[in-house]
Amino acid sequence: MHAYRSHTCADLTMDNVGDTVRLSGWVHRIRDHGGVLFVDLRDHYGMTQVLCDPDSPVFSQVERLRSEWCVRIDGVVKARAESLVNPKLPTGEIEVYIRDVEVLGAAEELPLMVFGDQEYPEETRLRYRYLDLRREAMQRNMMLRSDVVSSIRRRMWDSGFREYQTPIITASSPEGARDFLVPSRLHPGKFYALPQAPQQFKQLIMVSGFDKYFQIAPCFRDEDPRADRSPTDFYQLDMEMSFVEQDDIFATMQPVIQGVFEEFGDGSVDTEWPQIPYAESLLKYGTDKPDLRNPIEMQDVSEHFRGSGFAIFAKLLEQDGTQIRAIPAPKGGSRKFCDRMNSFAQKEGLPGMGYIFWRDKDGETEAAGPLAKNIGPERTEAIRQQLGLGVGDAAFFLGGKPASFERVASKARDVIGEECGLTDMDRYAFAWIVDFPMYEADEESGAVDFSHNPFSMPQGGKDALDGDPLSVKGYQYDLACNGYEILSGAIRNHRPDIMFKAFELAGYGEDEVRKRFGGMVNAFRFGAPPHGGCAAGIDRIVMILADTANIREVIMFPMNQRAEDLMMNAPSEPTSDQLMELGLRVIPQE
Amino acid sequence: MHAYRSHTCADLTMDNVGDTVRLSGWVHRIRDHGGVLFVDLRDHYGMTQVLCDPDSPVFSQVERLRSEWCVRIDGVVKARAESLVNPKLPTGEIEVYIRDVEVLGAAEELPLMVFGDQEYPEETRLRYRYLDLRREAMQRNMMLRSDVVSSIRRRMWDSGFREYQTPIITASSPEGARDFLVPSRLHPGKFYALPQAPQQFKQLIMVSGFDKYFQIAPCFRDEDPRADRSPTDFYQLDMEMSFVEQDDIFATMQPVIQGVFEEFGDGSVDTEWPQIPYAESLLKYGTDKPDLRNPIEMQDVSEHFRGSGFAIFAKLLEQDGTQIRAIPAPKGGSRKFCDRMNSFAQKEGLPGMGYIFWRDKDGETEAAGPLAKNIGPERTEAIRQQLGLGVGDAAFFLGGKPASFERVASKARDVIGEECGLTDMDRYAFAWIVDFPMYEADEESGAVDFSHNPFSMPQGGKDALDGDPLSVKGYQYDLACNGYEILSGAIRNHRPDIMFKAFELAGYGEDEVRKRFGGMVNAFRFGAPPHGGCAAGIDRIVMILADTANIREVIMFPMNQRAEDLMMNAPSEPTSDQLMELGLRVIPQE
Repeated sequence: MHAYRSHTCADLTMDNVGDTVRLSGWVHRIRDHGGVLFVDLRDHYGMTQVLCDPDSPVFSQVERLRSEWCVRIDGVVKARAESLVNPKLPTGEIEVYIRDVEVLGAAEELPLMVFGDQEYPEETRLRYRYLDLRREAMQRNMMLRSDVVSSIRRRMWDSGFREYQTPIITASSPEGARDFLVPSRLHPGKFYALPQAPQQFKQLIMVSGFDKYFQIAPCFRDEDPRADRSPTDFYQLDMEMSFVEQDDIFATMQPVIQGVFEEFGDGSVDTEWPQIPYAESLLKYGTDKPDLRNPIEMQDVSEHFRGSGFAIFAKLLEQDGTQIRAIPAPKGGSRKFCDRMNSFAQKEGLPGMGYIFWRDKDGETEAAGPLAKNIGPERTEAIRQQLGLGVGDAAFFLGGKPASFERVASKARDVIGEECGLTDMDRYAFAWIVDFPMYEADEESGAVDFSHNPFSMPQGGKDALDGDPLSVKGYQYDLACNGYEILSGAIRNHRPDIMFKAFELAGYGEDEVRKRFGGMVNAFRFGAPPHGGCAAGIDRIVMILADTANIREVIMFPMNQRAEDLMMNAPSEPTSDQLMELGLRVIPQE
Repeated sequence: MHAYRSHTCADLTMDNVGDTVRLSGWVHRIRDHGGVLFVDLRDHYGMTQVLCDPDSPVFSQVERLRSEWCVRIDGVVKARAESLVNPKLPTGEIEVYIRDVEVLGAAEELPLMVFGDQEYPEETRLRYRYLDLRREAMQRNMMLRSDVVSSIRRRMWDSGFREYQTPIITASSPEGARDFLVPSRLHPGKFYALPQAPQQFKQLIMVSGFDKYFQIAPCFRDEDPRADRSPTDFYQLDMEMSFVEQDDIFATMQPVIQGVFEEFGDGSVDTEWPQIPYAESLLKYGTDKPDLRNPIEMQDVSEHFRGSGFAIFAKLLEQDGTQIRAIPAPKGGSRKFCDRMNSFAQKEGLPGMGYIFWRDKDGETEAAGPLAKNIGPERTEAIRQQLGLGVGDAAFFLGGKPASFERVASKARDVIGEECGLTDMDRYAFAWIVDFPMYEADEESGAVDFSHNPFSMPQGGKDALDGDPLSVKGYQYDLACNGYEILSGAIRNHRPDIMFKAFELAGYGEDEVRKRFGGMVNAFRFGAPPHGGCAAGIDRIVMILADTANIREVIMFPMNQRAEDLMMNAPSEPTSDQLMELGLRVIPQE
C-alpha cells in the first residue's frame, strides 16, 4: 500500500464498504460522542468521517489528536446507519473505523481556526496565510482563479493566439505609474525596471511579425495600495494583434470574456455589448466604467434651470462650462429617501443634492420638495416630462462643472439603483467605452498632455492633429463590467511621423521621445504593421466572479495594504555586502 | 472588405482562382523578371507570390517597395503555369496580380536581412531583435517554445495539477545564487527580492492544503552570464505534491517530460529511465548529468596500477582518496586518435591522459602505447578483460582524486563517444540521478555544509543525522537528458525537529534558521503534510528540442552576455527623483 493514501478524502462510497483503506489529511474537527471519537478528516478534495472506539488499540493516540494535525490513518470502510447518512457529502454514506494512525505533522495552538466561519483581522489572516488558505472559501477562490486563468488561456489558443513570454527584468515602461527599480550588480549605479505592462514588448512582437500574441503577464506598479489593487504585482491577460481595426479587437475579446463569465459566473451574462462614447458615458453615468445593470441614465436639464427661481443653479449656469444634471430615481419618490440621498451627497463633500419627487394629490401628479417650489410648476413639469417620471418617482440634481460633481453623481446613481431595487444584481452587464480623448488640458496651467495612452492612434490620423488637440479622439477603449473597468486597449500608433507629431502636441520633442521610447520608435522605422490590442485585469475579473471587493481574497499570498509580507518578512534590510555589490548606500531617514 | 486582409499569406489555393483578395504582410524578396515585378509577400503564416506587370496602374508604386516594407495589396488570384508551381509552398499553385497597393509601414535601410541565411554578430541580432525574429528559424523557435509550454501545461492539468501564481516581489529565497533586490519606496532602506524560485511558496501551498501545484514560473538569479543560462530571468516548470514519496514524483513527471519530447523531439525518446545513484553516476560518467546516448561507462581500474611499473599512477595511489579511472573507447584503437585525446586532456588543464590501445599482431591481440609497456602484458590484459575491449579499441586513464579529474573525464567521454560514432545523436536518453549526498566538506577548511538543497528530507530521517554527516543521503534527485540537467527536485523535510537538526550539522543555529527561513519554518509548526516536487528548466528543454546550445535562440527578447538589453537600453541611470524616493544614493565607482 502507498505510504500515505489509497484514496483521497473525497473518494470513498458504498462501493468501498469492507475495504481496508489508507487516508491522509487534516483533522478538521474531532468530537467525542459517548466515548467514540469522530474525526472529520479533510484533504484538498473533500472530507471523510473516520472514527475510533475505546476498544481500538490506537484509541489513546487518536485521543491526542487536535485540530489541523496532519495524520495518516488506516481503517476499514463501513456503511453508516441510514439515519446518519449525510447526503451533502460525497462520502456521506460511509465512515472509516480507524485501525492505525500516524501523526505526519502535529500543530501547535492555532492562531486562526480553519473549521467554522469565525472572522479574523486581515493581518492575522495574512501572517498565517497557510491556515487561512485551508478554509473552504479560500480554497474555492484559489481554485476559481486557477480555473479562470486556464479557461482564458484555452479560449485565447482556440482563437488562434499563442502565448509568448516577455522580459521581466527590463527597461522602464511608460505606463504612467511608478516603476519598481532593480539595481544592477554588473553595472553599478544603473537600474533595471520591472514592467508596468509588457506594452512595448508586445508591440515589438507585432513588429517582429508574430500576428497574434497573448500572455497571462505579471505586471508591476509601485502604487499606493487600495482595496481593489495589489500594491506590487498583478496579472493581466495581455494581447495584441496585427492588421486589425478596433472592431476586430472587440470581436475577438467578447467571446473570450463572455465565455469566461458564462462558465464561472453566478448570474446571467449580457450578450449585447453596447459601444458607448466616452463623453456619452460621462454624461449618462458620470463615469467611464458604468454599471449597466442599473437602468438609470442621467440627463442634462440645464435649460430648465436657466433664469429660474432656484438662484443657486441659475447663477451657476452663468459661468462657462457649467451644467445641471438630473439623476432620475424611479420608485424613489419619498421625502425620506430624498433626504437620505441629500445627506449622502453631503458626506461625499458636495453642498447637497437638490431633488424633486412626485406624489399623488387628489388624482393629480404633484411635484414636491423645496426645489419644486423655487422653480415653479411649469419648469417642474417640463423636467418630469423630459425624464419620463411620474408619481412615486424622484429626480436628483447636481450643478457646476461636470468634473466637479460627476464622481458623486456616479456614486449616487449606484446607490439609487440599488436602494430602489432597479439594479439587477444577478447579471453581468458589459459596455465598450470608446472614443476616448487623446489629450486633456491641465486644469490650472492649461497645458495639454496625453489623457491616457500616448501610443494610441488618433482617429483621423495625422490630419486630425492639425486642429484643436482637445477635440482629438483616440482609437482607444475600455471594457466596463458591473461598474469595474476590466479591460483597456487601443489601436496603436505604428507610424513614426504621426507619433512624433502626437507627442509634439503634448510638449515632448523628438529627442525626448527617442530617449524614453527608443526601443519601440526605432523598431517602427523598419516596416511596422498596423496593430492593436488590450489588457484585461485577471485579478479584477476573478474578484467579480468571486463576488468580493477585496483583491486579497483572490491572490494566494498577497501583500498587506502597506505593501508588506508579514509571513515572509518582506521588505527587509539588505546586508551591507549586498549594498556594496550593488554600489548603493541607504540614505538615513530623519 | 476588411481594411487589411481577406486572407493570410498561407491561405490561397487553386480554390481561390479568380477571387479578388486582400493580403497584408512584409516584402520578403522582390525580383524583376523581364519587367514584371515578383514580390514574395510574407506574414506570420506563410508566403504568397504577388506580382505586378508594367501595365498595372500601381506599377510605379510597387517598383518603390523594398525588403521588409509592410504593405497591403489587393489583387486577383490566378493559377500559376504548371512549370512555375512550387510544391514546397502551400500557396505554390497560385499567384496574385496586384491591382492596388498601400504602404502600411516603410522600412529604412536594413541593419540585418530577414531573407537568406546570412549570419550576424549576436549584438546586431539583439539590438534589432524585431528583424532577427522575423527570420524563419527564429519564428520557428518561438513557436516551438510557445507550443512546448502549452503542452506542458495541458499535461500537468491532465495529471490533476492546478496552476497557482506565487509572488514575484517578495522576500529573499535561499536557493544558493544571488538575489535581485528591489528597493521599497514605502519602506525606504528596505528591499524586496525577486524569487530565485518559488521554493518556499510552493511548500507553503502544500501546507495550505492544495495537494498538487504547478506553475510555469519566472525565476530570477543574479548570476554571471553563460551561454546556456539567462543572466536575469528564466522560466521553470515548478511543481509540488503532498503525501508523496520519491517514486510518486518520478511516476508523475516521466509521462509529462517524455510526452513533450515525443511530441516535439526530432529523434527517438527513451521510455526506460534508469535511476542512477549520484556516486555511481560520477564513477561511470564523471558527472551527475550523464549523456546516456553514449554507451561508454568508466571503471575504477586502480588495482591494476597499484605497485605497477607506471610510477606516476603507482605513486598517486599511495595517497588517500585517489583512484585510477579508465574510459573505455571501443573503436578508438589508433595511435592518432589516442594522441588527439591526450592533447584534449592537456588543453583541459590535465598533465595528459594515459592510454592503451589494442591491435592485431599476427592474429594475436597486442596492447600498444607507452603505458602498456610500463605495466607489462599481464596487467594490460587484466585491464582489457575488465573493460571488455578487444582489437581496434582503446582505453584512457586518469588518476588522482576523482574530483580533480572527473570534469575532464566526463568531457573526454563525450568526445570519445561522438568521435568513435558510439553516441546515438538521434535519441533522447534520460536518467534519474538519485541519492545525492546531503552534505559536503569544504576541501580546505573541512567545514560541513549542505551540498544541494537544505530543505530535502534526509534518507533515514532524524536518526540518520546521528552518524557521519558526509554519509547522509537526501531524497533528492535530478533528471538528466542528453548531458543536460533538465529537472531537479526533492522530497522535502517537513518536520521542524529534523530540519533544525539538519541545519545544526551544517553549522546553522535555530535562530539563524528562523531568521532566514522563518516563513516556512513557522508554517511547519501547524500540521505540515509530507510533500515533495521538482522544477524543470523550460528554456533548457526548449533548447534541447530546438537543438541549439545557446539559450538566447529560444528567448524572445534575451539580455546579452553582459546582462544588457541594447534594444531597450537596460539597465540605465535612474533619475535623481527616483533615487530620492527610494532613499538611495549611488556610490561613485572608482
